[in-house]
Amino acid sequence: MTPERHRRLCAALDRRQPDLSVILEGVHKPHNINAIVRTCDAVGVLDVHAVLPENRARVSASSAMGSQRWVYVHEHDSGPDAVAAARAQGQQVLAAHFSDSAVPYREVDFTRPTAVLFGTEKFGITERTVAAVDQHVIIPMMGMVSSFNVSVAAAIILSEACEQRRAAGLYQQRRLSEARYQHAFFRWAHP
Amino acid sequence: MTPERHRRLCAALDRRQPDLSVILEGVHKPHNINAIVRTCDAVGVLDVHAVLPENRARVSASSAMGSQRWVYVHEHDSGPDAVAAARAQGQQVLAAHFSDSAVPYREVDFTRPTAVLFGTEKFGITERTVAAVDQHVIIPMMGMVSSFNVSVAAAIILSEACEQRRAAGLYQQRRLSEARYQHAFFRWAHP
Ligand SMILES: C[S@@+](CC[C@H](N)C(=O)[O-])C[C@H]1O[C@@H](n2cnc3c(N)ncnc32)[C@H](O)[C@@H]1O
Ligand SMILES: C[S@@+](CC[C@H](N)C(=O)[O-])C[C@H]1O[C@@H](n2cnc3c(N)ncnc32)[C@H](O)[C@@H]1O
Repeated sequence: MTPERHRRLCAALDRRQPDLSVILEGVHKPHNINAIVRTCDAVGVLDVHAVLPENRARVSASSAMGSQRWVYVHEHDSGPDAVAAARAQGQQVLAAHFSDSAVPYREVDFTRPTAVLFGTEKFGITERTVAAVDQHVIIPMMGMVSSFNVSVAAAIILSEACEQRRAAGLYQQRRLSEARYQHAFFRWAHP
Repeated sequence: MTPERHRRLCAALDRRQPDLSVILEGVHKPHNINAIVRTCDAVGVLDVHAVLPENRARVSASSAMGSQRWVYVHEHDSGPDAVAAARAQGQQVLAAHFSDSAVPYREVDFTRPTAVLFGTEKFGITERTVAAVDQHVIIPMMGMVSSFNVSVAAAIILSEACEQRRAAGLYQQRRLSEARYQHAFFRWAHP
């Protein structure tokens, strides 16, 4: 590895946020999965929890998840299982979901340990999973169309999380445990 | 038209921002075009200026542009032509582009009349067009990958523009001229 490459890996690892994660329930289009995971990398997310779709999109979704190099993708059997996994890490779980109780995303405190959940392109998040989260979050919409593309919704919410964490100085101190740092370093350095 | 439908059309038209536009130079993947234009609708953009790709992606890009219902897509022969069109409307033109002089997107004043320019998936904005704009804008990245997906970059910047304009009350007063309002109303109501 060149010294420059080594420096880049370490700089990115120093900015990783172990207490900001993403949950995808049934998202199945490979271009959406790729765009979302690329956004996760860019805002410092290390862990993505994925519930694969149950239909024939499963194979290509699984392959898009599996091709990811810079984040850990953890597969779960159900939405509630994925929510439980994030909560076991001490994270509040927010569903990006339209409901009467949903809070505008700019009013959320993303400096707290947080997981954000997104649903499928067609049907959104299942009722069962929606019921399992702590809060619903919405991105206000001013036009005719009733929802954003899922990778767009993820980008809007995660960029706000990134901005809040940047302002709070959370990218300026190493946040990973020594064990996770070493594990990620060897994975990134020796693919 | 049902009264409910009529009400929705008018509410969306009342929030349209004639002084916030988007320029796409050579963006060619239909799913990116569709996601970007859907985001434009959601933040109240009425006009998209498009320079179609020069290669065999042209046909599908053109068809994705043509299928758009809620925004006007204006085609231009070159990036500088598209920039000139936005400037003729009195808009500052910002390129979402990596450069030494680029300003972080949260520091930009998007309540000013503004057009934001995005480049192709592979090569970004051409040098000629980059040279024609007023300022370069960047979304800071904390990870390993060196750019966002283009529809993600558009979402992050446009959602900030939306938030600034919401805070400034720009969605609370009708912004369209009577002529544009009527034109858009008839187009939306009678597709
Ligand atoms: C295309 S949307 C699904 C639309 C589906 N018809 C519904 O009503 O849930 C895919 C996912 O993107 C996210 N999403 C899209 N627009 C959103 C918005 N304005 N606010 C919050 N989340 C949104 C949600 O997580 C949603 O499950
Ligand atoms: C995938 S990028 C193109 C990458 C290309 N290799 C380059 O260096 O420009 C496609 C477009 O998304 C926008 N974009 C992506 N990431 C961005 C960022 N971090 N800041 C500003 N614009 C970005 C730019 O408009 C860019 O032209």
